[in-house]
Amino acid sequence: MPQKFDYKPLLSRAAPAEPQFARARARYDFSVGYAEPTSVPIEGLWQGLRDCMREERGPGLALYPPAGGYEELRELVVRKLARDRGMHVTKDEIVLGHGSGQLIRDVIALLVDPGDTVISEEFFYVGTLRHMRYYGADVVGVPMDEEGMRADELARILGELSSRGKKPKLMYTIPSYQNPWGSMMSLERRRAIVDVVREHGVPVLEDDCYVDLRYEGDTPPPAMCSLDDSGQMMYVSSFSKIVGPGVRMGWVAVPREMAGRLNAIRMDGGPNQLAAMALAGYLSDDMYPHIDEVSAIIREKRDAMLSALGEHFPPTCRWTKPKGGLFLWLELPEGADTQVLHDKAFEAGVGYAPGVIFSPSGDKRNCLRLCFSYMSPEDIRQGVRILAEVFEREGALRA
Amino acid sequence: MPQKFDYKPLLSRAAPAEPQFARARARYDFSVGYAEPTSVPIEGLWQGLRDCMREERGPGLALYPPAGGYEELRELVVRKLARDRGMHVTKDEIVLGHGSGQLIRDVIALLVDPGDTVISEEFFYVGTLRHMRYYGADVVGVPMDEEGMRADELARILGELSSRGKKPKLMYTIPSYQNPWGSMMSLERRRAIVDVVREHGVPVLEDDCYVDLRYEGDTPPPAMCSLDDSGQMMYVSSFSKIVGPGVRMGWVAVPREMAGRLNAIRMDGGPNQLAAMALAGYLSDDMYPHIDEVSAIIREKRDAMLSALGEHFPPTCRWTKPKGGLFLWLELPEGADTQVLHDKAFEAGVGYAPGVIFSPSGDKRNCLRLCFSYMSPEDIRQGVRILAEVFEREGALRA
Repeated sequence: MPQKFDYKPLLSRAAPAEPQFARARARYDFSVGYAEPTSVPIEGLWQGLRDCMREERGPGLALYPPAGGYEELRELVVRKLARDRGMHVTKDEIVLGHGSGQLIRDVIALLVDPGDTVISEEFFYVGTLRHMRYYGADVVGVPMDEEGMRADELARILGELSSRGKKPKLMYTIPSYQNPWGSMMSLERRRAIVDVVREHGVPVLEDDCYVDLRYEGDTPPPAMCSLDDSGQMMYVSSFSKIVGPGVRMGWVAVPREMAGRLNAIRMDGGPNQLAAMALAGYLSDDMYPHIDEVSAIIREKRDAMLSALGEHFPPTCRWTKPKGGLFLWLELPEGADTQVLHDKAFEAGVGYAPGVIFSPSGDKRNCLRLCFSYMSPEDIRQGVRILAEVFEREGALRA
Repeated sequence: MPQKFDYKPLLSRAAPAEPQFARARARYDFSVGYAEPTSVPIEGLWQGLRDCMREERGPGLALYPPAGGYEELRELVVRKLARDRGMHVTKDEIVLGHGSGQLIRDVIALLVDPGDTVISEEFFYVGTLRHMRYYGADVVGVPMDEEGMRADELARILGELSSRGKKPKLMYTIPSYQNPWGSMMSLERRRAIVDVVREHGVPVLEDDCYVDLRYEGDTPPPAMCSLDDSGQMMYVSSFSKIVGPGVRMGWVAVPREMAGRLNAIRMDGGPNQLAAMALAGYLSDDMYPHIDEVSAIIREKRDAMLSALGEHFPPTCRWTKPKGGLFLWLELPEGADTQVLHDKAFEAGVGYAPGVIFSPSGDKRNCLRLCFSYMSPEDIRQGVRILAEVFEREGALRA
């Protein structure tokens, strides 16, 4: 199409500054939380779709999907949350969405006006941070330790905000296999955080997208959401990590009135019924064997990454050793700038996510996130070796 | 989940006033633009999905979908627009989305700030009207005749706005088988409208969702978008009407930079890859035979509705006789209020859409929209008969 007409003077204030086009991916791509590719259940998904369609629910595609989404998939989520996360909800409290991202966005849209304060970890999922900023939120990060968000720091920050007359509209947190750190929060810490937010009346959205992918250690504690009996805690998760982001299907568990408000604000015709049928058909029989299979494959990849880091990175660097999830967090010596180094690494064939993109304050430029779920163990070893070479050559590994 | 915690005091200004829950559908449901249900290509969709997945594109589900969406489906859209609509675009100018609705919303979000003026028909698709209002637009409706939007009235309104220093950010229009009227705009009218908007520098989003469903008369004129060589005209359509809304897949054709901005503002991880694969696999061979099949079925339904209206509604009422699409527009005598009558009809088993929901000004309370694509011809005859009885009983058919 011709481009003579100039749209620029007509753009809204919310319009992104730059257009975004398809980008090349690095040969050794550790940048994005992709799913494990060799285990995508291709056969299972289309068998599942066929089964659901044959049960005379196919003509349902002629309708707009029901509010909240395909009932069979919501029922499966209800069973999963009871079995795995200590949560007892009904299907009317589940809303399906286009990945967890749409639901996170819509929860933010329901609560946040420009200038409102929201809370999260010191470093957290960049997609949520972007939505918070789009809606004009003032984002405050809570310092973390090896368990993730610190309860004492949260209490301090909420106290300070309160003394200035500010009450956050929302707290977002990832207690299990946190993105980007990979940290796991203990049951005790979860309880402490629930106590703090209840004292301050701040609603919470718990993001539990990674909890199914466990490689070692104890079963994760129950969801933070299960520790509350007031409805103050909301919960979001996704099929992107155990099946694949291409299915674009996530869910929230929220009190019924909030579910109704999410249905009302989405104005998108409802969640994809075709993808929901394929997932419900497949996962109703095969979810847990599939999770075991995926976890076993990624465990090897995580081990390959940890051993390659030990082999190629000097003691001036530190990294987390996640027991589950997709990511680890690598800290270079002070003074290194992983956003500047990013282009050098990309030219050498390695992709990663600079740590600063996860930070509401823009601090800590010497960190980066590596995803270990997508590449093969052999490619992980190669990629980590090349990455260390690039950083060494650029002088980024010396304290 | 418990509902003790009160979210109400925390809601944003944009939060919908009322939660929305699943609603019962009427026995004779003419209220929503559903697809034809007996022809949903169940077998074709899962065969299509299997074909695309087998061609080693299945592991692609482990990635986030590419910016703009599944390439094979965008290429199919490019070929379709060239063959059917006189439009010559490249795949980089196509962006897939969650139905046409997401794309309409995102085009509005890119252009409209609160208080900006937008233009459309006097009555138009309620989904678009809701998005316009969500983004705070001042919506101006242009009077219509049997061809849809009037060019002379558009020129008058743009002139008046201009004399008050106002230039609309966007014009949205449905030239082919308009929703809710079912009107078809001639080539001459399309040219006249393009001339007016070019004179005033107002960008246009042409919604062409219904054009494939033709029951009589000439092939529709080329898209309004094809009559412009400046990039000022954008185009949106969908697979919802020829396959089913449950697949949630629409597309826009826009200049490349606007495509990049749509990719940037969506922040949703990309269009559903699973549904795109199923559609691309199925439609690459079977699209036109399927469109013929669906059109033949709906033609009978439209005929049933027109003859039932003739049989049961008196000369005090008027209705449109659409040559394609899904909808007709029924005008009762002045004084009737179709929003009040709606509940009476629903109790008697008949659902329709009150005309006023399509009107930016809220005028004309004596009209309603009937969808003829979903119910069987027999149910259409029954439903229209019952509807006339209810209206007669309520005194709404007397002039």
